[in-house]
Amino acid sequence: MRNIKLIIEYDGTNYAGWQRQNSRQSPIANRQSPITVHKLKTIQEVIEDTLQRILQEKVKVIASGRTDSGAHSLGQVANFKTKSALSALKIQEALNALLPEDISIRETQEVDSRFHACYCAKSKLYRYFILQGKVSCAFLRRYSWHIPYSIDVKLMQQEAKRLLGRHDFKSFCASSSGAKTTARTIKKISIKNTRCSLIANRYPMMVIDIEADGFLYNMVRNIVGTLVEIGRGRFGKGSIGKILSARDRKLAGPTAAAKGLFLAKVSY
Amino acid sequence: MRNIKLIIEYDGTNYAGWQRQNSRQSPIANRQSPITVHKLKTIQEVIEDTLQRILQEKVKVIASGRTDSGAHSLGQVANFKTKSALSALKIQEALNALLPEDISIRETQEVDSRFHACYCAKSKLYRYFILQGKVSCAFLRRYSWHIPYSIDVKLMQQEAKRLLGRHDFKSFCASSSGAKTTARTIKKISIKNTRCSLIANRYPMMVIDIEADGFLYNMVRNIVGTLVEIGRGRFGKGSIGKILSARDRKLAGPTAAAKGLFLAKVSY
Repeated sequence: MRNIKLIIEYDGTNYAGWQRQNSRQSPIANRQSPITVHKLKTIQEVIEDTLQRILQEKVKVIASGRTDSGAHSLGQVANFKTKSALSALKIQEALNALLPEDISIRETQEVDSRFHACYCAKSKLYRYFILQGKVSCAFLRRYSWHIPYSIDVKLMQQEAKRLLGRHDFKSFCASSSGAKTTARTIKKISIKNTRCSLIANRYPMMVIDIEADGFLYNMVRNIVGTLVEIGRGRFGKGSIGKILSARDRKLAGPTAAAKGLFLAKVSY
Repeated sequence: MRNIKLIIEYDGTNYAGWQRQNSRQSPIANRQSPITVHKLKTIQEVIEDTLQRILQEKVKVIASGRTDSGAHSLGQVANFKTKSALSALKIQEALNALLPEDISIRETQEVDSRFHACYCAKSKLYRYFILQGKVSCAFLRRYSWHIPYSIDVKLMQQEAKRLLGRHDFKSFCASSSGAKTTARTIKKISIKNTRCSLIANRYPMMVIDIEADGFLYNMVRNIVGTLVEIGRGRFGKGSIGKILSARDRKLAGPTAAAKGLFLAKVSY
């Protein structure tokens, strides 16, 4: 079996996240809810189904990790095993020809059979975009959280330092998470005010980069939501330390919108 | 009556262009076509309907000109007359609160009653984006025309010079246009290879800027389509001159995709 690595970019707006979902539904639940729910597809199922069509065999695609419903990727890494003799380049070309336009395979590469996109990942970089200014942007609205009130970047930077290193991030983890341990190591966190020159106009944008050896469910979005509370003065100095040691999700800020979140890079 | 000027940004992906359309349909045409067509709204009708709701009076919004179905705007200018006493800022805030997220009012200003967004326009700048490289981009796909083959920017720049100045652009005008005269003056044309750093990854992008005192129907897209034929070697040296003097649409290249087209600026 050959092992093929993929680097995948996706606009997650129209997807229910990365992971393939169990589509079984309780008939009772259906009867109780007469409203027709338009079920969104997941990135994984779209890629697996397209690969199956190309390779004429059942394929299981393993990603570096899940991404949330509505979140995006600039560099999701995945791998799959195949018996096919098609070159990595041919597979990439066929995928890009058949996949919907909001999923794009940036790179394909044949790798050692031991490579596993999830288990071998050493660290991940997430990037979060906050669109500033009173007026939103018709083009960036899908890719950022628009905050019209002012937030103090210096306060956010000072408090963010407290997140660096190994900590128990239970307070920043969604309660529905089934993680065995909630300790993670944040290697880097940076918060910058920039101008995003998407297409032509220039928009005030705050960019938050967080790199860690791993992330808990909703961890980036909960950290961003908490930092915004600090930036707008609702949470005072030293609040990150207090929230961390409390190990209680209720003390942290709200979960930031998924649409501002990008899985930027996975390192091996 | 007060006169209010608007600067409007829009993602035209989900609209049938700027101009409000007559919704009358022939019953015979309906009977012959049993397929239900999902009719797209226009930007003008969405803004007019929202203004009517805010101002509680019927409003006619005049733009600098139409934009095509699927084309975008970074700086469409429009104006409307109103009896309302609401400040321009209040009108902007109410519009941005009530309009869909893909339409954004960048500025509002009370102007002299003689200002007319269409008749007073001195020139317009259109910007066209061509995404280069073998692989498309999940994020820029809505805002650019992806051309995977290579196109020679120098050949395109040399030939484009021939378009500068006053010419009869009949060859670049859609045959369905009802324009009285097909003479226009192109003041500026620039073609550049850049790197578009939308969000994070950097993508090879060709940017074509065309500024003129006015544009015929499909003129920018037909010029871009022709320049691409030159860039890929299908049309030789001197072809722009020949196409211009022929005054025949059939000699020019194909119409470039609407999604790459942006009305960038209107000057008064």
